[in-house]
Amino acid sequence: MSKVEKKAVKEKIILGLDPGTNVMGYAIIIVQLSKVKLLQFGVIQMGKYGAHELKLKKIFDRVLTLVDEFNPDEVALEAPFFGKNVQSMLKLGRAQGVAMAAALYREVPITEYAPKKVKQAVTGNGNASKEQVARMLMQIFSIKEMPKLLDASDALAVAVCHHYQNGALKNKSKSWESFLKDNPDKVKSK
Amino acid sequence: MSKVEKKAVKEKIILGLDPGTNVMGYAIIIVQLSKVKLLQFGVIQMGKYGAHELKLKKIFDRVLTLVDEFNPDEVALEAPFFGKNVQSMLKLGRAQGVAMAAALYREVPITEYAPKKVKQAVTGNGNASKEQVARMLMQIFSIKEMPKLLDASDALAVAVCHHYQNGALKNKSKSWESFLKDNPDKVKSK
Repeated sequence: MSKVEKKAVKEKIILGLDPGTNVMGYAIIIVQLSKVKLLQFGVIQMGKYGAHELKLKKIFDRVLTLVDEFNPDEVALEAPFFGKNVQSMLKLGRAQGVAMAAALYREVPITEYAPKKVKQAVTGNGNASKEQVARMLMQIFSIKEMPKLLDASDALAVAVCHHYQNGALKNKSKSWESFLKDNPDKVKSK
Repeated sequence: MSKVEKKAVKEKIILGLDPGTNVMGYAIIIVQLSKVKLLQFGVIQMGKYGAHELKLKKIFDRVLTLVDEFNPDEVALEAPFFGKNVQSMLKLGRAQGVAMAAALYREVPITEYAPKKVKQAVTGNGNASKEQVARMLMQIFSIKEMPKLLDASDALAVAVCHHYQNGALKNKSKSWESFLKDNPDKVKSK
């Protein structure tokens, strides 16, 4: 492979996030040609922080740290659009909001996926159980043991879903800059 | 007044925020001794930004700019805790989340107030109309004309509510640092 060809090889880092009010799952994958590798995944637990604001601050700080450490090209977010009640949806919205703020602050574009879409993309079945999704991910990434908290595998699943999705959507805006270039009418400075 | 006394004069800047998905009201007041002055208030309109993420980024950027420009000691947030449906509460939660993230990033403590509480504090009536609240604020700050969008006066109202509230709550944690000092059990580094 010549140097020019080597330079042309595309590499992409995707940060998958599954934000919740008490636990947030995260996963970082790297896509090189058609290969996809897992760099890191885990959970951030906020239950120990009593004050709601402290939990939100922790989510923001940790997502910002992940973005600065791994420099992802794109963020994929698992975002349920409906829930049991307005109170829990407001809290979930806040958790999602602070996580998104950290990515947006660093100008990393975000794509959202409904849980059903993620399950469909990973297992082929939109109604698959969390355990079925986890088993499929273990196979893809040759993971021997899944983390106890399935929020981590949920985050990995949304990152994988985004990777599959991108293959089909070649013309999608890939960066903040290209989004701005493609949508000049949507962006006005105030 | 001696120099020592002069130094002891407490001055406090409060940023009031009324975040919404399409319009966010903001107001900055300064409290010197028992006097309260309006520094600036207005609205940030997000309706022109088509993409939801662009709106959220704009909220984050503008709140961060306000925090950096006015260096507020405290942020007061008007936060409805219940709404019509889960979908709108998720969106509202995200708008609140990104606004809060900007304040938390700069370590400015946030206090939330329900709309009823704000109306009660400003007018003495928890069921006052937006117009009644606006008229009372015009009187307090000698404003001749209120802005057309009442979100700005709502933000001013929550800042005033926070100022009144603080008078009664002298022992409240006033800064992030003092909060951490007062609540060592609530803060653990991970």
